[in-house]
Amino acid sequence: MTLSPADAARRAEAVAPRLREHLPPTPFVRYGAFSEELECDVLVKCEHQQRTASFKARGAMAKILTLTDAERQAGVVTASTGNHGLGVGNALATLGGHGIVYLPENASPSKVGALRRLGLELRAEGTDTGVLETKARAYAAEHGLTYVPPYNDPDVVAGQGTVAVEILEQLNGAPLDAVVVAVGGGGLISGIAAVLKAHLPDVRVYGAQPVNDDAMAASVRAGQITMVDAGPTLSDGTAGSVEPGSITFGLCRELVDDWVLVEEDAIRAALRTVIDTEHQLIEGSAALAFAAARQRRTELTGRRVAVVSCGGNISSTTLAAALS
Amino acid sequence: MTLSPADAARRAEAVAPRLREHLPPTPFVRYGAFSEELECDVLVKCEHQQRTASFKARGAMAKILTLTDAERQAGVVTASTGNHGLGVGNALATLGGHGIVYLPENASPSKVGALRRLGLELRAEGTDTGVLETKARAYAAEHGLTYVPPYNDPDVVAGQGTVAVEILEQLNGAPLDAVVVAVGGGGLISGIAAVLKAHLPDVRVYGAQPVNDDAMAASVRAGQITMVDAGPTLSDGTAGSVEPGSITFGLCRELVDDWVLVEEDAIRAALRTVIDTEHQLIEGSAALAFAAARQRRTELTGRRVAVVSCGGNISSTTLAAALS
Repeated sequence: MTLSPADAARRAEAVAPRLREHLPPTPFVRYGAFSEELECDVLVKCEHQQRTASFKARGAMAKILTLTDAERQAGVVTASTGNHGLGVGNALATLGGHGIVYLPENASPSKVGALRRLGLELRAEGTDTGVLETKARAYAAEHGLTYVPPYNDPDVVAGQGTVAVEILEQLNGAPLDAVVVAVGGGGLISGIAAVLKAHLPDVRVYGAQPVNDDAMAASVRAGQITMVDAGPTLSDGTAGSVEPGSITFGLCRELVDDWVLVEEDAIRAALRTVIDTEHQLIEGSAALAFAAARQRRTELTGRRVAVVSCGGNISSTTLAAALS
Repeated sequence: MTLSPADAARRAEAVAPRLREHLPPTPFVRYGAFSEELECDVLVKCEHQQRTASFKARGAMAKILTLTDAERQAGVVTASTGNHGLGVGNALATLGGHGIVYLPENASPSKVGALRRLGLELRAEGTDTGVLETKARAYAAEHGLTYVPPYNDPDVVAGQGTVAVEILEQLNGAPLDAVVVAVGGGGLISGIAAVLKAHLPDVRVYGAQPVNDDAMAASVRAGQITMVDAGPTLSDGTAGSVEPGSITFGLCRELVDDWVLVEEDAIRAALRTVIDTEHQLIEGSAALAFAAARQRRTELTGRRVAVVSCGGNISSTTLAAALS
């Protein structure tokens, strides 16, 4: 299956009004200190202030909005301990329905608590996330339930693309030269780039990945979905390989103008700057986008740049390590 | 000078509509994990999401709204490197006018940058905050300019009291049993308690102070404003002695039902919990209020409790130390 940029944009614009009924728009604001430092206008799309503190609430909501009441009540299945699981939980808590989340036995108590409070049924099994995803898919197929993938799904990509629908409204006709987006599975940047380029064909799309875990950038370079030898990264939200056959690969290949690979030190430094200058709590994957903008400062001078601050889910333990 | 609770409430309700034109209401939301842990409804007034990331924006705005254009243009003087200075800067950036802030030479670059970006004239002199305040007052008096005190002023107290005006609106008739507020100079709790008790006479007002720096609680205990031998505290926003003759002393004595003294470990633990469960960045003085609620959990069981999360200005260095 493939999804064309034009189709992705159309789907995002179609779902945006329905999504808005359940997910209020997030702020799109200028960060003064970053703008001063980079000598450009840094406009930040604050998805860390989104419900569940992540853009993932959009994709999950968009997918679950396609289901009937009966389908939601029968059950929706996913595998995640992170932002995607929270997004599915939020959508079901909002729209009604039953959710089953497969998660590893060693998931942190605070993440488990957050999923449980959203009313999800939790199934802790083993520690291998690949196995968990397979089990989740198998259980859904066996019982005729809906599986919600984290990014490889046209409705999920469309949901993430509503970030750009809002940016366009919030720009209110003002120009935009570039957008910087963190990339994991590629759902967010695919949706955003499709929508933005449909309206602003000259906008430059930067995809940010950690040097330590750059599967999508490596795949685009190789011309096919490729595994990388990944190391640990503070940007845990973007970590992991790209699913074989993912619709996001073609979209990334076509729409991303430049890949910015960021070292861990630079991700940590960006996290610190956002705390010190804006007093906002962001997660590593959001810091990745700020760090990427910083890394391209020479070519961004004098421009108007949107940085997508994709989430704010970071544990105090991870934060302490990142700041130390 | 004294200020009666009834006057404080009247002034807060009078200034609230004008304040709202410039400071949008902050969220008042239930924190699920805290509610579960304390077995009560913990409703959080999110002043850490206020402009400048602190309730201090209210008091400064309320005071500066009493000035004429000419008075604002002539100049407004204060002494602060913290939230009060940012509040004055925000009010002048919003309403127009010239601001002069006395600050210590060793103020952190990120704080200095934030004040400068608000367009304030900065005067760095020495390191003694008491001396700086005296200099600021003297300069204002000598040149016929307006000095804006951080808490000992009826308009400032009224501005802080608009927190409670909003809480009452956001409750929309639902009951409230208690409110927990961090106390430094006492401006915030004086304004909030005056407004709440005018409408909900049975609401129980808890004043939270660090064990290490509890000047107001000690003063109320002693029946007069008293100096304490203060130690360091993560709740730097509440640190410092109470100004002789402060109008907040009488209000605190009359309106605060219970003083909760909190150890540093408990303040740090509350900060960690808010990060882990709500992914919100709060400063030590806000964590102090959460810790105080936790400390009174037995008597709060089954109640509806408002916790005022008074600010979010914390440096990455302070945060790293608090989380380590």
